[in-house]
Amino acid sequence: MIIVADNLNIVNPLVAEAVSRLDAEPIRHMALQCQQAGAGAIDINSGPLPRMPEKYFTFLVEAVQDATALPLLLDTTNPKALEAGLRSCRRPAIINGFSLEPAKLERILPLAAEFDADIIGYLLGPGSEVPFEEEAVMSVAVELFETFCRTGLDPRRLIIDPVIAPLSWDNGLRHNRAVLNVIRALPDLLGVPVRTIAGVSNLSSGAIGVNRKIELEQVFLPMLAAAGLGMALLNVFHKRTVHTAGLCEALLGEKVFAWQRNDGP
Amino acid sequence: MIIVADNLNIVNPLVAEAVSRLDAEPIRHMALQCQQAGAGAIDINSGPLPRMPEKYFTFLVEAVQDATALPLLLDTTNPKALEAGLRSCRRPAIINGFSLEPAKLERILPLAAEFDADIIGYLLGPGSEVPFEEEAVMSVAVELFETFCRTGLDPRRLIIDPVIAPLSWDNGLRHNRAVLNVIRALPDLLGVPVRTIAGVSNLSSGAIGVNRKIELEQVFLPMLAAAGLGMALLNVFHKRTVHTAGLCEALLGEKVFAWQRNDGP
Repeated sequence: MIIVADNLNIVNPLVAEAVSRLDAEPIRHMALQCQQAGAGAIDINSGPLPRMPEKYFTFLVEAVQDATALPLLLDTTNPKALEAGLRSCRRPAIINGFSLEPAKLERILPLAAEFDADIIGYLLGPGSEVPFEEEAVMSVAVELFETFCRTGLDPRRLIIDPVIAPLSWDNGLRHNRAVLNVIRALPDLLGVPVRTIAGVSNLSSGAIGVNRKIELEQVFLPMLAAAGLGMALLNVFHKRTVHTAGLCEALLGEKVFAWQRNDGP
Repeated sequence: MIIVADNLNIVNPLVAEAVSRLDAEPIRHMALQCQQAGAGAIDINSGPLPRMPEKYFTFLVEAVQDATALPLLLDTTNPKALEAGLRSCRRPAIINGFSLEPAKLERILPLAAEFDADIIGYLLGPGSEVPFEEEAVMSVAVELFETFCRTGLDPRRLIIDPVIAPLSWDNGLRHNRAVLNVIRALPDLLGVPVRTIAGVSNLSSGAIGVNRKIELEQVFLPMLAAAGLGMALLNVFHKRTVHTAGLCEALLGEKVFAWQRNDGP
């Protein structure tokens, strides 16, 4: 399971401030901190960037790639920003992302072909609505995959995000149980070993304390890992969550377990 | 997921000492502590009791049920001890347990019919060996279930234990990944919604530190819960593991989430 940092987000006032002043230093510093905290990739979430999208997104991509060689996820709904970001990216980037929403199919999905980039597809309906029943999520997955394949792109370019719901939503719990089943079922459902990503921070978005957030992440992450999740998008400054991700790898992976050497019998 | 305390075990010197002196007070005290720590049932593991099995096991059962009304798992390989324990038990008990080992089929399994008791069946081969390949575990499950059903017992009396292996074993990791799949597959495999139990403490048995034990439990328990495990046998004095079990219930169950009331938006 690859850990993707979701920390570099415009909703963070530090990031917003640095972007508005085009001050690269705080962005480079945060990117480096993310890498040191265990990130295997960094999501750059700029928000929609209504003003000068190309300029601001290029600034972000360049600041981050000056600090780290980690793979980047370019996370904006603004196609102009995305295109500029893809142009300025000095290594393969992941577009984050598209869905069945017509605007995304028309403006975002074609960028994957144009830049030969991996792209994340969200399991959301055409109106960006979350499908709550497990069957509905599966049916969106099939439609998204077929839509993707019709573009002629290699199916291996697609990374599916089944969209974790906040637990504060009425149907959040039920939806998240469906998410576990969907992640597990996708390879059979689509007939290919499709990659997956999930935004773990979504689980506890809203007004709950940070300790409660972290303990919920620590419990849900192993469930996601055992279901076969490929990439976990999370706050890498939550040390215990990152540590949990490492233990998931140890329990589910093929590597020799470190404690067998350090403190085993 | 029901939490079963595995603390009342003869390998604990306090328990061994109390048994040898037939001193009920430390046993009652520990049983009460287990209940206060969140146990939903208590496993009484007396070991094989080579001397006066009836006397010692009856002593244990009576001491525990004097302290708590929790359901009891009677955990010994000694059929005489088991029979005496079942006789002295004032409420339905769970026999822990039998396997395909001939001695268990001949001497332990019939006690389930005689006392109309639930019984745990271990997924072990006839020589008590752990089957390491997933297919082998599945095939033991089918054989155990068929053997059980041939006795005429109600299949709902059976609780299957797929046997978590210590991670220190060469094949431990691989076996435990198979365990997750087996728990998930059992209802389809056997055609009935069979109950399951697993000994979580086994995961880290051997010479590793208690903090490492607890963090491994905290990661593996959610995987087991998401696979559908019904009963988790564990050290209930590991507070964080018990807390994790509660969060698993919250994420996987149908109940309203407490934090939605306490610190939700």
